[in-house]
Amino acid sequence: MPRNIDVDTYAEGVLAGSRATLARAITLVESTRPEHRDKAQRLLARLLPHAGGSHRIGVTGVPGVGKSTFIESLGTKLVGAGHRVGVLAVDPSSNRSGGSILGDKTRMGALAAEANAFIRPSPTAGTLGGVARATRETIVLMEAAGFDVVLVETVGVGQSEITVAGMVDCFLLLTLARTGDQLQGIKKGVLELADLVAVNKADGPHEDEARRSARELRGALRLLTPPNTSWKPRITTCSGLNGAGLDELWQQVLEHHAALSAAGELAEKRSRQRLEWTWELVRDQLMSELLGNPRVERTREEVEQRVRDGEVTAGMAAERILRAFRADGSGRAEDSSA
Amino acid sequence: MPRNIDVDTYAEGVLAGSRATLARAITLVESTRPEHRDKAQRLLARLLPHAGGSHRIGVTGVPGVGKSTFIESLGTKLVGAGHRVGVLAVDPSSNRSGGSILGDKTRMGALAAEANAFIRPSPTAGTLGGVARATRETIVLMEAAGFDVVLVETVGVGQSEITVAGMVDCFLLLTLARTGDQLQGIKKGVLELADLVAVNKADGPHEDEARRSARELRGALRLLTPPNTSWKPRITTCSGLNGAGLDELWQQVLEHHAALSAAGELAEKRSRQRLEWTWELVRDQLMSELLGNPRVERTREEVEQRVRDGEVTAGMAAERILRAFRADGSGRAEDSSA
Repeated sequence: MPRNIDVDTYAEGVLAGSRATLARAITLVESTRPEHRDKAQRLLARLLPHAGGSHRIGVTGVPGVGKSTFIESLGTKLVGAGHRVGVLAVDPSSNRSGGSILGDKTRMGALAAEANAFIRPSPTAGTLGGVARATRETIVLMEAAGFDVVLVETVGVGQSEITVAGMVDCFLLLTLARTGDQLQGIKKGVLELADLVAVNKADGPHEDEARRSARELRGALRLLTPPNTSWKPRITTCSGLNGAGLDELWQQVLEHHAALSAAGELAEKRSRQRLEWTWELVRDQLMSELLGNPRVERTREEVEQRVRDGEVTAGMAAERILRAFRADGSGRAEDSSA
Repeated sequence: MPRNIDVDTYAEGVLAGSRATLARAITLVESTRPEHRDKAQRLLARLLPHAGGSHRIGVTGVPGVGKSTFIESLGTKLVGAGHRVGVLAVDPSSNRSGGSILGDKTRMGALAAEANAFIRPSPTAGTLGGVARATRETIVLMEAAGFDVVLVETVGVGQSEITVAGMVDCFLLLTLARTGDQLQGIKKGVLELADLVAVNKADGPHEDEARRSARELRGALRLLTPPNTSWKPRITTCSGLNGAGLDELWQQVLEHHAALSAAGELAEKRSRQRLEWTWELVRDQLMSELLGNPRVERTREEVEQRVRDGEVTAGMAAERILRAFRADGSGRAEDSSA
């Protein structure tokens, strides 16, 4: 990170579409240092009026479903059609498991080499909340830099699909051919988040099987409530490998966009997402203040020990910690009873 | 809820094993009203020295895997062997989807009729945090009432498996026969939480298939880090329908308990769980204080409107809300700039 970060220079560089400045700006929003956070917020405020102009598309699916090949194939096709495509990732496990998605740009070598594509691996900041914040802010940067398609890839770990669905316009679930009882294998909550489902690897001998799966999935999806009243989730087949079905899939993305826009739901969805994001930030910040409070720091060890030893209930221990936090400047005397 | 709740009478009733008092005490800990919370904490403090004496076992698996039949079958067998068995559920969706687990006690009619069994449906308090709190506190009550096996059922919605794994000694994943690529269908995070995995419905023509699945699962599990160093997850087959494999499975629960106890890990695990629970309560309570703060209440609507309209970044809006909260009694002047 450069020592002297000038917000104006960053803003102008991003708006002019400079890849180098965009990369540095992303590094800035990924930083958790207070002085960087402050500059990042000022940069985002400058760029906000220029953001919002992309198709924000989330892509999820279990490991092995072919997400990288799919994204490279779709991204290259879109760049060929004149789009500017950004690819981001949300993988809170990337700093632990070593199996990070997008960790290795060479996995999308052809797309990475395109002048009108920009691939950014998942930040390795740690918590899902931290990774999500950086990714949401990076979407703003990419839009201000003129990218009109932003693909956000996620691996299905814990809450990450819910998090990504909360920052995109359209959420795409990639799956493999499976029938009957095996449909239970798809995380039910994820199917409910999906605007589009694509049975991938529909190539060669697997094509028929994929089509059969898509039919069965359509039946299953009819049982679930669609996430938007103006849109019923669509199921297609595609092949990231040979490109089959990608045109049709992109057509569905556009139809989804048109349907939501016509109903006024796209603006409503984005505004609801911004609001949810705000409250997430409030929650995270509040807890870090509590944890950094000197009175809490002094009480913490003893309270934790008594909880560990089973001497006090969790409820009582929590109350004690909260009293220590509240007492700080609130004028109330600290109650030191357990 | 009775008007006059006497904590001493409740405590004595629970310790004497009165089913009626236990039921009322559970209703008390499920309540979110401040005067009930206060009494609940005092009741729990009274009972805490008498708690801890049960095998706490979590049971998860996708809908259709046969959890109810399995629990009824295992529970009835354990009651027959002289155990006192409590069955609880964590289903944060029960008040929304209508497909509540344990919502209908008749699903476990035979077990519910046993004098030494106590079945309590999931509280419908709303958030996962609220449901989890009530369930954790109910485990304390049941143990104080002399139950020595507590089964906590959960349906795999969102974070609920992680939550339940965080309140039990032993986490059991029920699954169905599946092979090869289909193993990807099991939520990876859940397999990592499991101490025991049982391929259910291993009866009649499905028995061979179940055994083959168990073998493949053993291979897959070898790739994952075991949650406790002194325990490698075991995989068996069973049938909730005809009871096959249940004795062996219970034997594994006992072996797991013995292995963890011998290594000092059981006490360590429970003490870590109590600590995590404490911090969860701190987080929840802190947010409800912020939301109930009059200054935040006054600012909230305007800030939310500006976020919805895209006039301010989420980061700035969050800072504004936090300033309103901090200003309350902290002596700092409220900064009313956006």
